[in-house]
Amino acid sequence: MTEDFSFKHKHIISLEDLSVDDINLILRTSESFKEISTRSIKKVPTLRGRTVINLFFEPSTRTRLSFEIAAKRMSADTFNISASTSSAVKGETLVDTARNLEAMNPDLIIIRHSSSGTPNLLAAHVKASVINAGDGTHEHPSQGLLDLFTVKEMKGEISGLKIAIIGDIAHSRVAHSDIIGFRKMGAEVAVSGPATMLPPSLECLGARVCSDPREAVSGADVVMALRIQKERFQDPLLPSLREYASFFGINRQLMALAKPDALVMHPGPINRGVEIDPGVADGRNSVILDQVTNGVAVRMALLYLLMGGD
Amino acid sequence: MTEDFSFKHKHIISLEDLSVDDINLILRTSESFKEISTRSIKKVPTLRGRTVINLFFEPSTRTRLSFEIAAKRMSADTFNISASTSSAVKGETLVDTARNLEAMNPDLIIIRHSSSGTPNLLAAHVKASVINAGDGTHEHPSQGLLDLFTVKEMKGEISGLKIAIIGDIAHSRVAHSDIIGFRKMGAEVAVSGPATMLPPSLECLGARVCSDPREAVSGADVVMALRIQKERFQDPLLPSLREYASFFGINRQLMALAKPDALVMHPGPINRGVEIDPGVADGRNSVILDQVTNGVAVRMALLYLLMGGD
Amino acid sequence: MTEDFSFKHKHIISLEDLSVDDINLILRTSESFKEISTRSIKKVPTLRGRTVINLFFEPSTRTRLSFEIAAKRMSADTFNISASTSSAVKGETLVDTARNLEAMNPDLIIIRHSSSGTPNLLAAHVKASVINAGDGTHEHPSQGLLDLFTVKEMKGEISGLKIAIIGDIAHSRVAHSDIIGFRKMGAEVAVSGPATMLPPSLECLGARVCSDPREAVSGADVVMALRIQKERFQDPLLPSLREYASFFGINRQLMALAKPDALVMHPGPINRGVEIDPGVADGRNSVILDQVTNGVAVRMALLYLLMGGD
Repeated sequence: MTEDFSFKHKHIISLEDLSVDDINLILRTSESFKEISTRSIKKVPTLRGRTVINLFFEPSTRTRLSFEIAAKRMSADTFNISASTSSAVKGETLVDTARNLEAMNPDLIIIRHSSSGTPNLLAAHVKASVINAGDGTHEHPSQGLLDLFTVKEMKGEISGLKIAIIGDIAHSRVAHSDIIGFRKMGAEVAVSGPATMLPPSLECLGARVCSDPREAVSGADVVMALRIQKERFQDPLLPSLREYASFFGINRQLMALAKPDALVMHPGPINRGVEIDPGVADGRNSVILDQVTNGVAVRMALLYLLMGGD
Repeated sequence: MTEDFSFKHKHIISLEDLSVDDINLILRTSESFKEISTRSIKKVPTLRGRTVINLFFEPSTRTRLSFEIAAKRMSADTFNISASTSSAVKGETLVDTARNLEAMNPDLIIIRHSSSGTPNLLAAHVKASVINAGDGTHEHPSQGLLDLFTVKEMKGEISGLKIAIIGDIAHSRVAHSDIIGFRKMGAEVAVSGPATMLPPSLECLGARVCSDPREAVSGADVVMALRIQKERFQDPLLPSLREYASFFGINRQLMALAKPDALVMHPGPINRGVEIDPGVADGRNSVILDQVTNGVAVRMALLYLLMGGD
Repeated sequence: MTEDFSFKHKHIISLEDLSVDDINLILRTSESFKEISTRSIKKVPTLRGRTVINLFFEPSTRTRLSFEIAAKRMSADTFNISASTSSAVKGETLVDTARNLEAMNPDLIIIRHSSSGTPNLLAAHVKASVINAGDGTHEHPSQGLLDLFTVKEMKGEISGLKIAIIGDIAHSRVAHSDIIGFRKMGAEVAVSGPATMLPPSLECLGARVCSDPREAVSGADVVMALRIQKERFQDPLLPSLREYASFFGINRQLMALAKPDALVMHPGPINRGVEIDPGVADGRNSVILDQVTNGVAVRMALLYLLMGGD
């Protein structure tokens, strides 16, 4: 909290927008806030009287809860709006919803929406800060940042590491934020998944695209499984869940190709036995629950950096 | 907050119940609270330790959020109950729900219900204060008060003004509260809408009933559009939405008949291109978003006047 | 609050686990907290900065609200998760949900679930304290404790009293907690209900099983009706609701067999005219609403005893 105030962004919408210095500032600030959640009195007055709105157009427990816990531990006032109860059901446009929320003087709106680009639209119409909590297949920057934080905490440095990401890369906003973030911080990123979930355009983001997951995982310092959307596998053009698990599921054989101390990561919630084997998910290299713990710290840092100035 | 405590009501159920002095006290108190929402630390300790229950039997984002923000900025503790999760689904009567809530010692219950008169029933069975946040087609007094506040803020005085309200007057609880409030404060009110939505009985409330909206709007200081319930227009006895928009939609031609500085108002959420033209809704005379901002201030005032004594 | 800290339990899952001394400590602590809810400022700083999660897999208004009010009056931060929005809908196992919540450092998780034993499973996987807010047909210990508190408050002593519980004993988690609690505190318990709702195994819990409700109620100091699940009565093997009401409903004739000052209790919400006659539910011997009021005090005590140490 003695951090000098050099964070110049008003919104957190995409990791594309953040410089290496920005990311380092976020990670350092997260580190200083992490300890608060281990106290008996998990509360600091830093953001007292700030108004934070969680505007979720897609169901979410984990991310919404993580932001709400982060906000309350910083003493901000939080308000939850979910799609089913929102004016959206009354046919109001998103821009009108944004303007109406703005009129109640919030300091920050955290938005999740099934359409990519929605947070930008929101940010263009409000004076409040906006955090993208996941927009369509675009980005989920706070997840990307907590993944960076977790790797840095465990490995000391991100630069020079080899990161493998396995799954439906094309449709994963988590993967997109992670690829951008890890590349920016100097890591190599290799991705793999079924061909239909692996557009060659990913190379523009700086990821090496591997049709064989063994190639991606070989020598990796970090192996990240993505959550599989089971609905998607009803498409006859796609492999069955069982085929997916046997080719792309993270199991011990696949992990044997990675470095011995390679971290196992997953954004959750996990489908045990599909994209990740239970033995690996619960194994000694797994940092899946550290990711959840660090999520609160990183979100406290984001709230502080966006709203902590006066 | 140095206001001497001359507010004698326990509940806010209908603008019928309030005297001109009561309304003036509410408006003055609202004015003194409005500034709080523009601060960096939007919080005063005035209602610390008070228990406020939002009991919503109809979906609502805007009104529920406005009350919840008002309550938290006054430091009250708030609790949300929505119909889908309430004991109502278990077949409990409203009176039993009321008595059970009462037994938990709330200070204030804010209720929205599809049946007119429900807030009175609630008030008869609890020691807590009750605010009607909309009951059936009866009243929505906090909306009426925020409309009065907005007009007074913009025009200086309400007395002597000409107010036009256009839409489904018969079924609008907002219109009913507004007609009563504006008449009480000395304004003239003219209403217009399709014949089936415009019962002659409105004249009992003191409104001039005009079959032609141009007559109602001519020379008006304020033109208020009401939200159209699209479902209602599936009735073959009613005009189509397009017909409605062309005859009763607030557009530039219609506004040309009002005074040049006439305010444009709408309780929201708006159906663009139906009851109001986008150019008018977003035009320089529109105070639609000021209504939303003022809603928080007026609700802070109501909470204070009902619970601020000790 | 000057109570010396002799409460040694980490979780409240079943009244089976609590000793007479434990229960007496809970009842004394509840007594000391009850007064707080009658103050104008209903808030003490005792649990400031503690994180309490309400994890409800079954719909609930009353119990969830009672715990939330208790927590906020103790200044804890509360977070609501309901089944429809939880990761459970995404196919996550309960153990994974537990581990993920745990990773966010909650101090207490309050769980309601349709499966008996779920709170034990949760407690085995988290460092946080767990309160069972109702699990299947097993137990609802905070309800049992508030019933004990109410009887003790009204009668001075529990030991030696005769308690009659009428209804679907077999499927009632409330009845199970009450039988265990009242027996432990030295009262006699007689139960009655339709044969199919009255397994002889209840005698293992120490209750006298009576096929005739008149036998159970004769000379009773307390008569408790259980809530009837109307859905259950569509089973052709069961009596109709009307038959149920005439044989097992608590009415004046049945109450005439109890002691003149016998208390009438019901865990709510009540089905008027089914398991209880309105005249009895609202009569001068009814303490049904006292139960609700005491529920907040008992839950404040539980939160304090589980989280108040440092």
